[in-house]
Amino acid sequence: MNDKFVLPDAVEIDRENAAVVILDQTLLPCEEKYESLTGIEELVDAIKKLKVRGAPAIGVAAAAGLAACTKRKVLEGTDRTGLSGWFDYCSESLKSSRPTAVNLAWAVDRMKNLFDSLLADGKEPVRIAEMLFDEAENIKNEDICMCRAIAANGLPLISKKGCGILTHCNAGHLAVSRFGTALSPIYLAHESGLEPKVYADETRPLLQGARLTAYELSKAGVDVTLICDNMAASLMASGKIDMVMAGCDRIALNGDVANKIGTLQVAILADYFGIPFYVLGPSSTFDAGTASGKDIKIEQRPAEEITTMHYSKRLAPDGIKVFNPAFDVTPASLITGYVTEKGYFASADGLVESVRKGR
Amino acid sequence: MNDKFVLPDAVEIDRENAAVVILDQTLLPCEEKYESLTGIEELVDAIKKLKVRGAPAIGVAAAAGLAACTKRKVLEGTDRTGLSGWFDYCSESLKSSRPTAVNLAWAVDRMKNLFDSLLADGKEPVRIAEMLFDEAENIKNEDICMCRAIAANGLPLISKKGCGILTHCNAGHLAVSRFGTALSPIYLAHESGLEPKVYADETRPLLQGARLTAYELSKAGVDVTLICDNMAASLMASGKIDMVMAGCDRIALNGDVANKIGTLQVAILADYFGIPFYVLGPSSTFDAGTASGKDIKIEQRPAEEITTMHYSKRLAPDGIKVFNPAFDVTPASLITGYVTEKGYFASADGLVESVRKGR
Repeated sequence: MNDKFVLPDAVEIDRENAAVVILDQTLLPCEEKYESLTGIEELVDAIKKLKVRGAPAIGVAAAAGLAACTKRKVLEGTDRTGLSGWFDYCSESLKSSRPTAVNLAWAVDRMKNLFDSLLADGKEPVRIAEMLFDEAENIKNEDICMCRAIAANGLPLISKKGCGILTHCNAGHLAVSRFGTALSPIYLAHESGLEPKVYADETRPLLQGARLTAYELSKAGVDVTLICDNMAASLMASGKIDMVMAGCDRIALNGDVANKIGTLQVAILADYFGIPFYVLGPSSTFDAGTASGKDIKIEQRPAEEITTMHYSKRLAPDGIKVFNPAFDVTPASLITGYVTEKGYFASADGLVESVRKGR
Repeated sequence: MNDKFVLPDAVEIDRENAAVVILDQTLLPCEEKYESLTGIEELVDAIKKLKVRGAPAIGVAAAAGLAACTKRKVLEGTDRTGLSGWFDYCSESLKSSRPTAVNLAWAVDRMKNLFDSLLADGKEPVRIAEMLFDEAENIKNEDICMCRAIAANGLPLISKKGCGILTHCNAGHLAVSRFGTALSPIYLAHESGLEPKVYADETRPLLQGARLTAYELSKAGVDVTLICDNMAASLMASGKIDMVMAGCDRIALNGDVANKIGTLQVAILADYFGIPFYVLGPSSTFDAGTASGKDIKIEQRPAEEITTMHYSKRLAPDGIKVFNPAFDVTPASLITGYVTEKGYFASADGLVESVRKGR
C-alpha cells in the first residue's frame, strides 16, 4: 500500500505552528476548506460540530490539540503550576465535546498520563510540549498502521477483478488517520489493479455516504456509485453486489456489532441474497464488557435531523413524531467474518481469542 | 367508514366553474395551496410537475379536465367540428404528460369514447359537456367505492388494538379519489377506535412518506411516526411492528409486485422478522400480460433526485454515478396476502381467480 493517500490526512499535526489542521467535513463534498485550529475553543467547537468526525480521527485531533494548546501556553511563559491547570481544563473541555466517543477519552487520558509523568520528572515546559507532540504523532502513526493491517487482512476477501462491494456510512480515510477501516482493503484492491466497483449507501439522515464516502472514493479514482438506502435490495437482486464491507462502533463478546443506523438492514438483505457481510475495524472496538448486542443502549437523536437538516425547507409535518436511533445492532448470525488489524476471523470466537491473546 | 374524509379530495370536480381543483402536492406538507385549473396547459403542467400524483388521482384529474376544457370551448360557441379537434388535442396532451401512467390513458380513452358516441348521436354541445362531467364524476365515484372496499377487506387484518403498522411511500388519500389503498384500512381502523400506530418510511429520494403519508395521517388524527428508510429493521427488531401494508403499481400473473423503490427491502426485512407483509391495491393493477416480475422493466430516474433535490445545496460529489430505479419488484414468496376491492387473497392464485371470474 502506498505510504501516502491521494487526499491530505483528515487531521494533520502542525508542530511548527502549534496547530491542528483539519478538513471541515461539514462542508464536503462541494467545498474543501482546511482549517488551522490553535485554540481550545476552536478545537472543541470543531469536534462538537462534526467538522472532524470518526472515532480515531477525533482521538488524534484531541491529542494533537492538547500538544498545540500546551505549546502555546509555554511560549506565553506560563509557569509549571499554570500549565498543569491549563492542561486539565483543556482535557476536560475536549472529553465533554463528545462524551460517548471512547477513542476521544482514551487519547486524552493517554496524553494526560504522559503530561503528568513529564511534569513529575521535572522536565522543562518547552521539552514537555515537544514530547506531547511526539505522543500525538505516535497515536496517529499507530492508527495508520492499524488501518494498513486491516487493508492487508481484508484484501484476500476481494479476490476477483471488478468485485461489486456495498458499503454503508463512512468508515474511510476521513474517519481515521489515513486509508480507513472498511474502505482500506478497497483502496488496496484499487492500487492492486483489481478495479473494485463500490456502491455507497447515502446513509440518512446525516448522509455520510453521499457526502464523505462518495467523495473520498471518487477522489481516489475508485469506481463508485451512490444509492439511496432503500435501493440496496434492488441492487443486490440485480446481481451487482459480491460482498458488503461495513465498519463497526462496538463489537460485543458474542460477536454482535453496533454500527451506524441501517447496518442491520444491509446485513439482513445480504443474508437473504446469499452475499457475504464483513465487518472491519480495529480490535479496540471489541468490548469484553458487553456480553451481547442486547446490552448496548441505543441513543435517539434529534427529530430535526430527519425533518429539516440539509433541506431547503422543512419536509415533514410540524410536530411529527420521529424515530431516529443513531445506530443499530447486527447479530453475529448475520456476519460472515470480522477483519481487524490482527487478522480475519470467520467467527466471534476467533476474534475474542485474538484479543485475549493480544497477538 | 365515514362518507367524507378529514381532508378535501386531492381532486375536486368544479362543474359550475368548469374547473379542476387540486391540492398542490409539491408544496406539502408545510404549505396547503389549492389550485383551480381551467386550461389544458395548466392541467398538463400540474400532472407533469407531480402537483397531482397517484395513478387513480391523475385519472380523475384528466377526466374532469377533459370535461372542463370541453365546457369552456362550448361556452365560447365553438362548433361541433372545432369541438372534436379540440377534444383530440386535449386528450393527446394529457396522455403524453405522464406516458407510463396506465390509469391516465385509460381515463382519457373512456372519456374519448363517450365524447365520440355523444357527438355521433347528434347531442347538443352543452349537453355533451354536462355528460362528460357526469362521466368524470362516475370515474371518481367508482374509485371511491374501490377504496372503501379495500378498507373493508383489509380491516380484519388489523385485529388488535394499538397495532403497529409500517407503510412505504404514499398509497393514501392523496394518491386516489378518497381514503387511499394501503392506508384506507388504517383510516377505517382509526375510525373504529382500534388506535393503530403507523410508522411511515420517508421514502427517498422523493420523500412521499415524509411529505405526504405523514401529512395525511397526522391530519386525520392517526398516530404516526416518521422514520428514515434505513431504520425499518431497527424498528422491527424493537418489536413495534405487527405488519407491513404497502401499495402496488403492478401485480404480475405469478403474484410478484412492482411498487415504489424500497418496497422489496421492507418485504425482506418483514420476512426475516416473521412479520406479515400485505399488498393492497385495486384489482386493475393485476396485469395478466406480465408473467412474472422478471418481465417488468425498471425505469432509471435522474441522478439529481439523489444528489440535489430538496437540499439547500448539492450533497454528493460533482459527476458522481448514481443508481436510481423508480421501483423494484417484490417476489410473491415474500407476500403474505393481497387485498383488493374484491377481497383478501392469501396467494396469487386466489387473486388471479378473482380477476378472471370478475366477481
